[in-house]
Amino acid sequence: MVSKPLHGRDVISIRDLSKYEVISIFEEANGLERYARSKTDLLRGKMMAFMFFEPSTRTKLSFEAAMKRLGGDVIGFEEPSTTSMAKGESLIDTARVIENYADIIVVRHPYEGAAKAIAEAVHVPVINAGSGALSHPTQALIDMYSIWREKGRIDGLTVLFYGDLKYSRSVRSLINGLLNFKVNFVFVSPEPLKLKEEVKEELGLLGIEYAEHTMLTEEAVRAADVIYVTRIQRERFADPMEYEKVRGSYRLTSRHLQNAKENLIVLHPLPRVDEVDVELDKTPYAKYFKQVFYGLLVRMALLKMILT
Amino acid sequence: MVSKPLHGRDVISIRDLSKYEVISIFEEANGLERYARSKTDLLRGKMMAFMFFEPSTRTKLSFEAAMKRLGGDVIGFEEPSTTSMAKGESLIDTARVIENYADIIVVRHPYEGAAKAIAEAVHVPVINAGSGALSHPTQALIDMYSIWREKGRIDGLTVLFYGDLKYSRSVRSLINGLLNFKVNFVFVSPEPLKLKEEVKEELGLLGIEYAEHTMLTEEAVRAADVIYVTRIQRERFADPMEYEKVRGSYRLTSRHLQNAKENLIVLHPLPRVDEVDVELDKTPYAKYFKQVFYGLLVRMALLKMILT
Amino acid sequence: MVSKPLHGRDVISIRDLSKYEVISIFEEANGLERYARSKTDLLRGKMMAFMFFEPSTRTKLSFEAAMKRLGGDVIGFEEPSTTSMAKGESLIDTARVIENYADIIVVRHPYEGAAKAIAEAVHVPVINAGSGALSHPTQALIDMYSIWREKGRIDGLTVLFYGDLKYSRSVRSLINGLLNFKVNFVFVSPEPLKLKEEVKEELGLLGIEYAEHTMLTEEAVRAADVIYVTRIQRERFADPMEYEKVRGSYRLTSRHLQNAKENLIVLHPLPRVDEVDVELDKTPYAKYFKQVFYGLLVRMALLKMILT
Repeated sequence: MVSKPLHGRDVISIRDLSKYEVISIFEEANGLERYARSKTDLLRGKMMAFMFFEPSTRTKLSFEAAMKRLGGDVIGFEEPSTTSMAKGESLIDTARVIENYADIIVVRHPYEGAAKAIAEAVHVPVINAGSGALSHPTQALIDMYSIWREKGRIDGLTVLFYGDLKYSRSVRSLINGLLNFKVNFVFVSPEPLKLKEEVKEELGLLGIEYAEHTMLTEEAVRAADVIYVTRIQRERFADPMEYEKVRGSYRLTSRHLQNAKENLIVLHPLPRVDEVDVELDKTPYAKYFKQVFYGLLVRMALLKMILT
Repeated sequence: MVSKPLHGRDVISIRDLSKYEVISIFEEANGLERYARSKTDLLRGKMMAFMFFEPSTRTKLSFEAAMKRLGGDVIGFEEPSTTSMAKGESLIDTARVIENYADIIVVRHPYEGAAKAIAEAVHVPVINAGSGALSHPTQALIDMYSIWREKGRIDGLTVLFYGDLKYSRSVRSLINGLLNFKVNFVFVSPEPLKLKEEVKEELGLLGIEYAEHTMLTEEAVRAADVIYVTRIQRERFADPMEYEKVRGSYRLTSRHLQNAKENLIVLHPLPRVDEVDVELDKTPYAKYFKQVFYGLLVRMALLKMILT
Repeated sequence: MVSKPLHGRDVISIRDLSKYEVISIFEEANGLERYARSKTDLLRGKMMAFMFFEPSTRTKLSFEAAMKRLGGDVIGFEEPSTTSMAKGESLIDTARVIENYADIIVVRHPYEGAAKAIAEAVHVPVINAGSGALSHPTQALIDMYSIWREKGRIDGLTVLFYGDLKYSRSVRSLINGLLNFKVNFVFVSPEPLKLKEEVKEELGLLGIEYAEHTMLTEEAVRAADVIYVTRIQRERFADPMEYEKVRGSYRLTSRHLQNAKENLIVLHPLPRVDEVDVELDKTPYAKYFKQVFYGLLVRMALLKMILT
């Protein structure tokens, strides 16, 4: 008998997935690449509904393209959570309506527990496409798959996180995902955007060593296999002067990479503002647009594995 | 020769449909249930366009899912009627543009005559998905189909309407639809939201008896086969205190149903705020989410019957 | 070997297309008419993404319908350019994300060079669906195809432009498109909305004669084979009184057409406000709604020729 990891399952947190399941998703993603520029009937007759209470054009389009390339259909809506609340209907009621139209629901919501609450209320599988400040499991899978595809492995690599490590939902999810692997963590962020104590404590409890800096040192770059950059958002700073100062100094340029490993890769969950200089785009380090394509493959893999 | 009720027809008002046509739609809906979780090619090559000048996510998704499950394609727009007017283009011109792209048009509009005016201007069939204060024929069909499916018949049943009977478009349409059947009407609403005199006069002229109460009495519940609940909207009350008072007393709870018939069903066009207590959701009475699924079947039936 | 005009090409400006290419598009449009009310698998497996930074429901629906009638899939977004800028992401980055999901990108943008800049940044073909004040190549092709279909030719015809000739993007594009043919131009507009000097200079340099009037004379109407009407927009006038005066006198009615050629056609890129009287709609002159249908065929032709 062939086991079917993820069949009929919800994907709410990256921590729900075992290393075996994660690798299965990666292998499925590889196999589905041949349909990424065409179409198959694998999911013909399956309907995906997206419920986006937080705008996210790129995540929505990625899921939509994935579903359509696999032959499935898509319906859904994208509106601020306030709209729905204005009508007075509960999130759960809305989901219990939508499950009548769809075979799988993809949720994005500003509140932490929204995707989980929906998954518990409905009878169809639910994928969390980002909810609250912590969880964005498909982004974590995309980031890990990008590393795995580009480097051939994840274990043993040195992953340097650069930018806003305090508020970034992608950073939190990726760290959680990487706990399944043996990775050397290096965290580089301005003082006010350092990784939260609770995360460092957990790494400590798990016996995982990490380094922490407030500036991108030559030595840190030299050791890195992956640099994962995130956007520093203005609204995180009470003092606009502080923001301008940090923003000016947190910008990855080719100058920083002069002594980098030849096969270093630079990832970014996008959108980028100017924290990665566009001059880097044409270097072999830059994988952030390829990462978008890998994202399509990962989402195709998830949809296929859950729905078939 | 097989007759084809509804083929090529507009559906503007529930009153345009004969009892025979209504039952034909119900039987078609039954037959299409096997495609409600998969897909057929019955409407391959057909394009549905929705023109929604009033937001209605659930109605839109229901039509979209129906069309896609049947193998058809969907285009359309959802915007306030003011947007279109700002550009200065007439509703009729917009419709005469859209008919070039579509084989059927589904209209929702705040003005009473909008769907009818469009139907008269274009050469493709038009379905009214709610216009003005009175007509919402597909909702009426869904409500009647829900009764017919759950009870096996409509004739001879006692249907209790509960809530806002003055302004609810769904209530008006359902009463109109039930005139094709022999139903005992019971109306329960707060004084300021009583059924309009003109409706009661019409019932009188047709020789239809009805009862009217301002409170949900035990006796009325005991006699009911169907309780049809509608939302009481704050904006209907000039005095907010009055609204709060009414709202507090118009809430269907399990306590009200202690002496109900065993096979009583509770319907609601949704969205619900708190006029049906969530504790009722798990009782066998609650059919309002199943009603959503029945809605999908009814819309599939309409699209198929009109377009083939 | 069969040559394939447009295969894999961008369509940014109408001036990039040769007369031979334009005629090829028209012939393809003719051939695709048989699918305009059904569906083919010609573009199965192809994904069109629209990036609309300027709202345009009708252009979006036309491209969507065209792609779906040909068996392709559609994703995309429609939002003001300011939204994207608010997030700080560059237009180019957005396009480099989208190209991972799509086989062709359709762009609409308020800035002149936007479509071209995107076309240079991505690896998939790009169609300009209107950008800036000058270029709207698919509208020009639709207008020319409408003339060609209705009159059997373009060379030798007298085309009268009526309305706002200064700011209309459609007028500019159509004049540019007609430079490939031998056309007699007649321009009729209020003084403040006359064709820009630079356009007239270019016509002069090319040795093309044209007439220019501020009122629609009987003689001009009598000579016309085509009258191309455009909307006069209030916001073009500093003085509202001036707008009202112009608006009142620029309105094509059946009275103007009393001595027109029997087979005169009236075109309009739509939306119309009142610059063409609705009484004209039922005359054989009125081709502006048929023009919408021709628009579907032209866009089907473009998508098919570029993608196969």
